[in-house]
Order: sequence, then structure tokens, then C-alpha cells
Amino acid sequence: MKVFVLNGSSREHGNTEQLTNLIVDGIPSTKVHLREQRILPIADRRHTPEGFQPVADDYDAIVQSMLTHDAILFATPIYWYGMSGVMKDFVDRWSQSLRDPRYNFKEEIRDKKMYVVAVGGDAPRLKGLPLIQQFQYIFDFVGAEFAGYVIGEANKPGDILKDEQAVAQARWLNEQLKAMN
Amino acid sequence: MKVFVLNGSSREHGNTEQLTNLIVDGIPSTKVHLREQRILPIADRRHTPEGFQPVADDYDAIVQSMLTHDAILFATPIYWYGMSGVMKDFVDRWSQSLRDPRYNFKEEIRDKKMYVVAVGGDAPRLKGLPLIQQFQYIFDFVGAEFAGYVIGEANKPGDILKDEQAVAQARWLNEQLKAMN
Amino acid sequence: MKVFVLNGSSREHGNTEQLTNLIVDGIPSTKVHLREQRILPIADRRHTPEGFQPVADDYDAIVQSMLTHDAILFATPIYWYGMSGVMKDFVDRWSQSLRDPRYNFKEEIRDKKMYVVAVGGDAPRLKGLPLIQQFQYIFDFVGAEFAGYVIGEANKPGDILKDEQAVAQARWLNEQLKAMN
Amino acid sequence: MKVFVLNGSSREHGNTEQLTNLIVDGIPSTKVHLREQRILPIADRRHTPEGFQPVADDYDAIVQSMLTHDAILFATPIYWYGMSGVMKDFVDRWSQSLRDPRYNFKEEIRDKKMYVVAVGGDAPRLKGLPLIQQFQYIFDFVGAEFAGYVIGEANKPGDILKDEQAVAQARWLNEQLKAMN
Repeated sequence: MKVFVLNGSSREHGNTEQLTNLIVDGIPSTKVHLREQRILPIADRRHTPEGFQPVADDYDAIVQSMLTHDAILFATPIYWYGMSGVMKDFVDRWSQSLRDPRYNFKEEIRDKKMYVVAVGGDAPRLKGLPLIQQFQYIFDFVGAEFAGYVIGEANKPGDILKDEQAVAQARWLNEQLKAMN
Repeated sequence: MKVFVLNGSSREHGNTEQLTNLIVDGIPSTKVHLREQRILPIADRRHTPEGFQPVADDYDAIVQSMLTHDAILFATPIYWYGMSGVMKDFVDRWSQSLRDPRYNFKEEIRDKKMYVVAVGGDAPRLKGLPLIQQFQYIFDFVGAEFAGYVIGEANKPGDILKDEQAVAQARWLNEQLKAMN
Repeated sequence: MKVFVLNGSSREHGNTEQLTNLIVDGIPSTKVHLREQRILPIADRRHTPEGFQPVADDYDAIVQSMLTHDAILFATPIYWYGMSGVMKDFVDRWSQSLRDPRYNFKEEIRDKKMYVVAVGGDAPRLKGLPLIQQFQYIFDFVGAEFAGYVIGEANKPGDILKDEQAVAQARWLNEQLKAMN
Repeated sequence: MKVFVLNGSSREHGNTEQLTNLIVDGIPSTKVHLREQRILPIADRRHTPEGFQPVADDYDAIVQSMLTHDAILFATPIYWYGMSGVMKDFVDRWSQSLRDPRYNFKEEIRDKKMYVVAVGGDAPRLKGLPLIQQFQYIFDFVGAEFAGYVIGEANKPGDILKDEQAVAQARWLNEQLKAMN
């Protein structure tokens, strides 16, 4: 079980990252911080004659790395009740990857186990549920299994470690992932 | 009633734009196409000593224009069951505006009437509902009224005009907005 | 197109019924008012050796009538953000019908076109969305198509006719159903 | 901290009950099994001149007991993606209690801490989320705090104890409740 962590936070060592670290502790994983990458918003060319064109940013390299893993962990702060904009930009680009002849995105993504970690400050276990439902639809669309999620509550940096429920769930998930190795 | 249309589509003259045009037909409105603007993802500095710093992109000018209107219409294609990444980047930046001493974002945004137009290709009247719920939380957070939404179904360019239900709802909303003038 | 209307309201000639009447106006339909029927809550016997036992109430007769129609319209007031208790009792009993050798519930229900009419007094177009999502899961489970829904806002008897948006949608749906005949 | 457990299951010693027992283990609690009670569906008389009339069933006694506790735990199997019909019948009757001059339902219910335990067999951590959102709206309406929920996955009797994640969350919640005593 090789885990690919896609971190959508705009902050270094933030709450989302700390909670995620508990989950992948001791597990072979690749961590990508989208804030350090250049990800352009999608330009929808599904219906133009020439189709999608290569985009000069870091997206392709991230996707190609992502596809070599068994599980993908989407770690995002809850910004305005959704995933962060930079993570949304990344997911939007999948529409291009689905049509990209250079790799078998469609065939490979469906075999991944998908996990979500979402940390927010405004009643996230309730107001974060539409975000979880969106991930459910996203993973259903590509045919991948939504294997689990952890929602954490935190505002100030470091607060997440005081959310005992989230910490307990993160540790539990960590054990599950280890047992799969 | 002056309407500000925030269009999150990546495509010119797309389905979202066409449906939106029916809604604001004959109504004084300002249209901003986010694809033509430079909107950087947020860098969360709520908890750093120096706080948020000015960002050199088009965001501020758009917000300042937006705040001079009575209603805001969020027009977005449904990309992966959510608003487009570029619209999400725009909304994420509100966290900065809420703390920006240069204008009274918080006091002014709450007086706006908010509308959403969302167009998608995969059962949007069902699978677009988490997106509507997110907008509900967003508008609740800033204290603004969620005055209405129209969900349309379309894939290929122009398809939206065949969605009679969405077209009827758009025309109905157009009459409502006109009557408010 | 024969329409079966399952009315879950506890009130005669209430708002839900009035909105529903607009939808089936001029269309061959059977209307069942659950408040006039005796529907017992389910006793879950999926895992007892003897299985489900016949229940002496009106449920079976309603189901057998329902299955002779092409479309089913679930018309419910929104009570506490869900379908009415009596309608929920009715749907819960489907677990028994799925295992009932006396009729082919499973094979027949999946061919129906499903519609929902829901009328509530507290921001139903937003706070009624979890109910719509539940119907989506219900219809998905039995393999039937969720062909459409209308949400109306009303409190006092007769208020629904002032909800122009719901009335317009009801009329539009009425035309669709007529065109299918 | 006195806990009132409202069990909506139709089955004795079922999965919902087992999970609930872990939560209230060692805590002073009153357990009511709705299947053993007679709860009639509501007859909506909010808009009739004479108003609601007393109903000859077990509802009032349950409510009066419920109001003497500090926390209410709604324990329901997930039937068709919602609470059980009998629990829905119970909640629907709150519309009557809100107007009942014999007790101060409105003033007393808002001080309770509300918990939900929901156990289902079809991806409940995803497909049970609309139910959680409904409880959120219900508790918001009466002004009570939604203090926590546990979702469990089980089909056959006893399966719930194999859902390690739910068991861990139940034990965690048990410790929280104990610490409040």
C-alpha cells in the first residue's frame, strides 16, 4: 500500500497537514503540497475541434506520480465549506486527463482507494458534509472506492491535536492502512 | 436592482453564460468572466503576525465592483460536482477581504441578494445539490440572503436551450428581477 | 402514462395536495391519501428464521395498485425536514415487499418513473434538499428513475398558490406528463 | 448528565441498540424503545380553529420523561436512508408539543444536548449523510446543540461489533459523556 497525499492547504505545517501526518505515520507515502506547485485552472476544450492542449505547469507530473500509488489521500482545509481552490483546480483538470492519450488515467484511477481528510473551523462535521458528498460523486464518476474520511475541527495552527475525536480517527485509519501493507 | 454576474466558466459563450443571459436580459448588470481575470489562490495568513498582504492580481478590482451592486449572481458550470476552480479561488479570497481594512466587505456583502446558476451534465438537479448546500453555508456565513437558484442540464455547447425546465426557471427569475427594479 | 399519487399529508386539501393537483390535472391518475389508510410501521424480520409475516393493514392493497401504474408521485409535506412519518412508514415496508413472494415488487418497481412533490414552510428549496437526496438513494436502490421533483413553499392552507415558482414548475411538469401520454 | 435514549429500531437487541449500549455504558440513562410504544402519526391541526387535540397514545408520557434529561440520543437504524418511520412519527408530533400549553416543550428542548446514532447496511457513512443533515435542521429549529453523531455499518444482527470504527467512536463518546457527569 503506497499512499499519495495530495495536500491542498495554503499554509505550511497547518492543521490539515498535522492530521494527515498522523494517518500516514510509518506508511510509505508521497506528499505533494499543491501550494508549492503551479496548477492552472482548466480551460474546457472538450468541445473544440482541436481538443485539449498541453498545459505548461506542474499538473502532469503530479498526476503521473499519483497514478503509481495504491491509495490517494485528499487532504484539504475546508475553505468556505469546500475543498481549497487549488485542490479544486487540480481536480478540474481531470477532465483533461480523462482524454489525454499520453497515459491511461481512466483505467488507472479507478483502481485507487480514495481517502479524504478535511479540517475546518465552522462545525465541520456538519457543514463539511456537502464536501464529503461531492467527493463521493467524484470518486463514483471515476469508478474508484471512497474508502474513508476523517473530518477535523480546528482554527488556530495546532488546534487540530486538541480535537480528540479526529485524532482518534486518524490513528485508527493509520492502523488500517498499515494492516493493508 | 443592479446585478453583478460572476461567471466562472472556462468557455466563451458556454451553456452557463447562455442561461445566465436569459436571467439578466433587460436588467442593468455587470458581467465579469473569471477566465479573463487573474485570480490567485488564497495564501492563508489569518494566523501569521503580519496578516494578509496585498496580492497583485485582479481580485480587488472585481470585489470592489461587486460591492456596488444589489444582487450577485454566481454563474458556474458544475465541474466535478462543485463550482469551477477559478470561482472557488475567488470565493476563498473572501477570507482576506473580511480582514481588509481598505473596504467594508463584511458590512456590505451581507446586504446583497445572492443567486446561483449552475449548469452540469451529470444529473445536476440531484448531484448538484451539495454545491447548492455549500452556497447556502457561504451566504449564511456572510449573512446574505440566498434568494434563488437555477440548475441547468447541458453538455455540448448550446444544449442548455433544450433544457426547457431551466429555461422556464431562468425566464421566471428574469421577471422577478425586473419587477424589483 | 398512468400516474399513482401517494399523498403523505395529514391534512385534507392541504398545500401539498393543491400543488399535486396542478401536476396531474387532466392526467389519468390514482390518488391515495395515506392519512385515510392504516399503515403500520415495519417490524424488521429480515433476519428471523420465519421471515416477514403478513400484516393486517392497508399496505398491500396500496402497493398492488401502485405497481399497475407507470409513474409514482410521492407528494409529501415537509415535516421536520423529511417526508411525513406516515409516508416513511409506507416506504419502510418496501423492505418486506422486496421479499414478498406474492408479487414481483423488485422487478416491477424499477420500471416506474419516480417524481417527488414536497411542500414546506422553512426555506424548503434549501432545507428540503436532504429529503430530495434521500429519495434519490431510495429510487437508486430499487433501480428506478428519479424523473423530477417540485419543491413548494407554504405555511397556511392555500399559500402554495402564491408560490409562483412552484406553480410554474408544477404546470411545466403537467405538460411533460401529458406529452408522455 | 442524564441521557435519554430514544430507540427507533423495530428489532430487539439489534445493531443500533448494541452500538447505543456502548455509548451509554455506565451512564445514568432512560431507554425508550419506540417499537414497544404506541405513537400515532401526527394530524396537522396548526391551522384549524380548535387547534391540536389530545391524542390517546404513549407520546406525551415519553416526551415528558425526555424533557427531564440533559441529553437526548436518537438511536435509529437507517431505513431507506432515513430515520425509522416510528421515530419520524415521534418527531413529527413535536409540532403539536410546540403548541401544547401543558408543558414548556419549546423552552426545555433547546437546552438539551442532542446526539444521533444511526446504523445502516448500505454505505451509511456516505448515504446516511442526508439523515445527519436533517437532524441538524431539526435541532437548529428547536435551538438545541447537535453535540455529536456516530454512524455504524451493519446488516446481520451483531455485525455492528465488527465495525471497529463505529465501536471506537462509540467508546470515545462514552468517555466524553462520562466526563460530563
